[in-house]
Formats: sequence, C-alpha cells, structure tokens
Amino acid sequence: MRLTAYTDYTLRTLMYLALRPGRAATIAEIATAYGISEAHLTKIVHQLGLTGDIVTTRGRGGGLRLGRPAQTINLGAVVRRTEPDMELVACFVASGTCAIDDACVLSRVLREALDAFLTVLDSYTLADLVAPRERLAALLRLDPPLREHA
Amino acid sequence: MRLTAYTDYTLRTLMYLALRPGRAATIAEIATAYGISEAHLTKIVHQLGLTGDIVTTRGRGGGLRLGRPAQTINLGAVVRRTEPDMELVACFVASGTCAIDDACVLSRVLREALDAFLTVLDSYTLADLVAPRERLAALLRLDPPLREHA
Repeated sequence: MRLTAYTDYTLRTLMYLALRPGRAATIAEIATAYGISEAHLTKIVHQLGLTGDIVTTRGRGGGLRLGRPAQTINLGAVVRRTEPDMELVACFVASGTCAIDDACVLSRVLREALDAFLTVLDSYTLADLVAPRERLAALLRLDPPLREHA
Repeated sequence: MRLTAYTDYTLRTLMYLALRPGRAATIAEIATAYGISEAHLTKIVHQLGLTGDIVTTRGRGGGLRLGRPAQTINLGAVVRRTEPDMELVACFVASGTCAIDDACVLSRVLREALDAFLTVLDSYTLADLVAPRERLAALLRLDPPLREHA
C-alpha cells in the first residue's frame, strides 16, 4: 500500500513553505532541500497554485508562499485531491470488470477501511506537520524560522 | 493508494474456497472464475499453504481447500502478511533517506492513518466476505453452494 510520490512531494512542499512564512521560496531550493526532482515539483507547484494553497509572485523578492494559513490546509483534503482515485484494488477503477462486483463485500470493507484512513488525515492540518519548527528548519538548513505571525 | 494485486488475488482465492466448503478446487478454475492469471495464483496458493490458510491434497478428488474455518481467517492478518512493508511514502522504506526524518510529523500521522485502516480490516473475517453465499456462488458460476457445516 503506497501513496503516490506526487502526494508525498505535495505535502513536503507545503511543509517547506509553512516553515518560512513571510518569505518566498523557489522550486530549486525546495528540490535541493529534500533531494527530489525539480521537474516533478514544477507540476506540483502548478497544481497547488490552482487550488490556492500556494501563491507565486514574480520579480525581485518573488517566489512561492503559502496562499493561506497552515492551520486551514487540511491533510485529508490535500490527499483526497492528490490521490483522486484511491483505487485500493483493481475493481475500484471501473465497475463491471470483476466477476463478483455486484455482491462483493470486500470492496465495501476496503472502502470502510479507506474512510478510517482519511478520517485520521482529516483531523490534522499543515500546521500540525510543522509543529517542531526549529528542528525541521535546522534539518532543512533554513534560516532561523520566523514565527507564523511575524 | 493501492493494495498490490497479490493481496487482491489472495483475498479472492480465499473467498472462492470459502464458498465451496467440503469441495476441492483447482488453480485453473479459480483463475477462470475471476479472469486472472494462473501463474500469479500459483505463487499465492503456495504462500497460503505455508501459513495453513489452505491445504492441498493430491490425487483423485484432490485440490485446494481452506485449511481452517473462514471465521478464523482475519482480514487484517492476511493483509499485513501480503503487504509486508506498508510503505505509504518512500521514507518508510529505509530511515535516513529523507532530510527531515528525525522530526517528521507526517510519517507519524500517516502511520496513525494506516493503523486506523488496518483496525477496520481486523474487525472482519473471511466469513464476512462470503456472507452473500448464494449470490456470490451464482456470479462465480459455482455449483449450488454447500453450507459451511455440510
């Protein structure tokens, strides 16, 4: 069972920006901080811009910032968006492809389990993920973190 | 987010056998019933034999049967065995590969969500999956199902 790298990188990008409120970041520096692909991040940043979770400003001092406060960015909502299908098993993709589709208790049980998974994520926000601000900033070699209200 | 085909086929194989207590089945007929690969099923059947969930008897009238009652085969236990890593994100695979490993709240939140997922599966057994016996047997074109205690 695995989340896509897309979801993983989306969450990490949001965490990075949440650790630097009031400062703009670049795709290149986020990619370097985590050791991940810049090309992949570009697509993620674009999508996060469409949903308003981040904003991009151009010009001197420009770059990426969170589009709204970290405590309003819900993890369940993010993961539901980045993992749109949640197709735990092949039969979830298209009904009618499995012989026992109509009477399958398994698919109902798996959906119940998936709901429980997402309900846990619904109880957290981006602010929770960056609660250990100082330690995270040090590990990512960020400048001393500014407070969210700075 | 997706379970492996291995888990999917393991559960479907167990369901098939649970629908035919007292009768032996072949790998070929299970593969045909679901329209899945016989080669893949062979490996699954071997593993299910090692854990005692199914037994294979040779000779005339031989084949595959459940090794213990369906109500004692727990879904959480099966899925934990067939999805041994449960590596929701890359950092779960090996510690030390992620820059923020030591202070990562995300990995803790995802593990909590995964626990919730598995706790739901723990509350079901194979017997629950085959509760609609007649309908499932008809969809799989099995002979009229025998009762478990037949």
